[in-house]
Amino acid sequence: MENFNFYSPTEFVFGKDRENETGYYLKKYGAKKVLIHYGSGSVIKSGLLDRVKKSLSDSGIEFTELGGVKPNPRDTKVYEGIELCRRENVDFILSVGGGSCIDSSKAIAAGVPYEGDFWDFYCGKAYVKKALPVGTVLTIAAAGSEGSGGSVITKEEGMLKRSTGSDLLRPKFSILNPALTCTLPPYQTACGAADIMAHVFERYFTNTNNVEITDRLCEAVLLTMIKEVPKVIENPLDYDARANIMWAGTVAHNDIVGVGRSQDWNSHAIEHELSGLYDCAHGAGLAVVMPAWMEYVCDHNVMRMARMAVQVFGCQMDYENPKETALKGIAQFRRFLHDIGLPVNFEELGAKCDDIPTIAKNMGIEGTTGGYVKLTTQDVVNILTIAAKASV
Amino acid sequence: MENFNFYSPTEFVFGKDRENETGYYLKKYGAKKVLIHYGSGSVIKSGLLDRVKKSLSDSGIEFTELGGVKPNPRDTKVYEGIELCRRENVDFILSVGGGSCIDSSKAIAAGVPYEGDFWDFYCGKAYVKKALPVGTVLTIAAAGSEGSGGSVITKEEGMLKRSTGSDLLRPKFSILNPALTCTLPPYQTACGAADIMAHVFERYFTNTNNVEITDRLCEAVLLTMIKEVPKVIENPLDYDARANIMWAGTVAHNDIVGVGRSQDWNSHAIEHELSGLYDCAHGAGLAVVMPAWMEYVCDHNVMRMARMAVQVFGCQMDYENPKETALKGIAQFRRFLHDIGLPVNFEELGAKCDDIPTIAKNMGIEGTTGGYVKLTTQDVVNILTIAAKASV
Repeated sequence: MENFNFYSPTEFVFGKDRENETGYYLKKYGAKKVLIHYGSGSVIKSGLLDRVKKSLSDSGIEFTELGGVKPNPRDTKVYEGIELCRRENVDFILSVGGGSCIDSSKAIAAGVPYEGDFWDFYCGKAYVKKALPVGTVLTIAAAGSEGSGGSVITKEEGMLKRSTGSDLLRPKFSILNPALTCTLPPYQTACGAADIMAHVFERYFTNTNNVEITDRLCEAVLLTMIKEVPKVIENPLDYDARANIMWAGTVAHNDIVGVGRSQDWNSHAIEHELSGLYDCAHGAGLAVVMPAWMEYVCDHNVMRMARMAVQVFGCQMDYENPKETALKGIAQFRRFLHDIGLPVNFEELGAKCDDIPTIAKNMGIEGTTGGYVKLTTQDVVNILTIAAKASV
Repeated sequence: MENFNFYSPTEFVFGKDRENETGYYLKKYGAKKVLIHYGSGSVIKSGLLDRVKKSLSDSGIEFTELGGVKPNPRDTKVYEGIELCRRENVDFILSVGGGSCIDSSKAIAAGVPYEGDFWDFYCGKAYVKKALPVGTVLTIAAAGSEGSGGSVITKEEGMLKRSTGSDLLRPKFSILNPALTCTLPPYQTACGAADIMAHVFERYFTNTNNVEITDRLCEAVLLTMIKEVPKVIENPLDYDARANIMWAGTVAHNDIVGVGRSQDWNSHAIEHELSGLYDCAHGAGLAVVMPAWMEYVCDHNVMRMARMAVQVFGCQMDYENPKETALKGIAQFRRFLHDIGLPVNFEELGAKCDDIPTIAKNMGIEGTTGGYVKLTTQDVVNILTIAAKASV
């Protein structure tokens, strides 16, 4: 097992009606003047924003607000938020929304006390050394941003999608009410599920041997997803299934399932180019990329892929031909994604085969990239070619 | 799923040689004058204490020290520590040892700023509202105290074992070097393993339905233990196996495997009377009590016990007689404990059948106690009677 630090200081406040405690937690973590940051009108229409505001008012906490965060959140909104926070002396960012909204909130939190351009943190020019505290009221189980120090922002000029990370960006508290996710359309629910599963797979495929505890924890989250996601596609109001998925989403990405081992993240890196270019949902892009990546790297460690097939998808082990088992597991994963309503090839995603060389080139790989199998630009072309034509 | 808060702010610093960073982490968390608290001479003999002291000196951190913490740590040592800390203006407690040492450190941490008797926190007379920060260098995988807010202390007068808990007692950081556990004798290693598995089982047996994510995470830790513990009994120097067990011990008790559901803790409560009375190892007492408790409560939910048998111990499901499966699982658990060298009945533990009524009475049950199945004093007598005569 490799040396590691595990640090997940966020206080998770989970369950029915917990958003009514937002004011209490803001006060607990020292907020005086809050920016409420949110995305689309759905948090307004559902009445969530009003409930959150009431909770703040009841606790005597002042606030200002900034809506309009888009999926694949943009740098332009971040600049707007930074300016607003400085003007209004905001000392705490409260994100009410999904992963995009939280990522935008983190970018603002890092940008406010920074003299330079916040994009410096995303293009590798600077590290976050100071940030306003962030809290979240989560509305979709997917990104895991509510329990992570990561943030992904898209630069509108050129639609470049880049990420940063810092313990300083970990939310002080995150309020997770699964009931808030019951109104999500099936497609968005499925996209979130794909993202959660990808967060686990990126950690599951490792070159570090003998990390049984993390392997088993990965499998625990994946098995939960396979059992619970079809339930909510069938019945969106199934609270317990929503709750299992929501907590799985947090566990999948606060790194408890990833410690002590090398990780990969190539599927995410490839997908970021897809959603950057086509503005498609991140989870949908992952549904297309992830199984293709698995097929392409299968030979690197057939027994690991076979373990996934057996432990996660319940395949029978073919002891004479483990690769058959491995490929069956991948096929079942793709079938699962298809069955919950996700695209599994370029046509279904709305991507174009002609763009493949551009997409691969956009990754800006110098030499190779990734952890499990190091990929060249040509490898990415090959993976995308598999992805483009995949079927169930 | 039930509403819950999950809060585990401890920074875990895991891996080879990490104890040499103790000074760095003390500084990071604001320590100026440290009490180094430790137990037996083994941390001296092994050179660990010297390495830790060197790390503090290198970081320019002052310290004083207090050794001699016993297993089942005593109130008398806590009083000594509180007085020493006050006299020397200590502002941070560093525990170098196992669960007993950490629990003693937490008691001192809570006692120093408290005007009354620290025992108030343990007998339910007061709640911890303020405490000195605690850090740990862990030397045995067992109690999970390095990542929990709990502490168990034994009052010498009457050998009463009582516990308290507070988020304020969660360590700021915990340094976990699995190599430090390689010198542990097999018996102590096995006792730690039993404690870790009991921490999971106390959470696994629940009356809350549909908490798949937590069920699966519980099974992940248990499966890891079953695979890794026999390896270190066979080869104590197996670093990777030691690492898996050590991290499993933390995961088993920071409540990530227990959220969203009712829990039990009756096996622990019963065992505390055993180790209180006979001063036996906590894990050894659990090895005797836990399977007996399982047998006694089996009928309460046969399918849950059968799930444990199938998922954790790999039993074949008997669809016509699930109770057979359930009982086979319990038998396999007891066999596992026996095989790693633990006692499975009173004789092997050094306990006396004649004491059973006294032990049950000592629990001071008013009416009933526990979560999964509510137990009366007579129920405890019945469980202990099963435990007394158990065999593999």
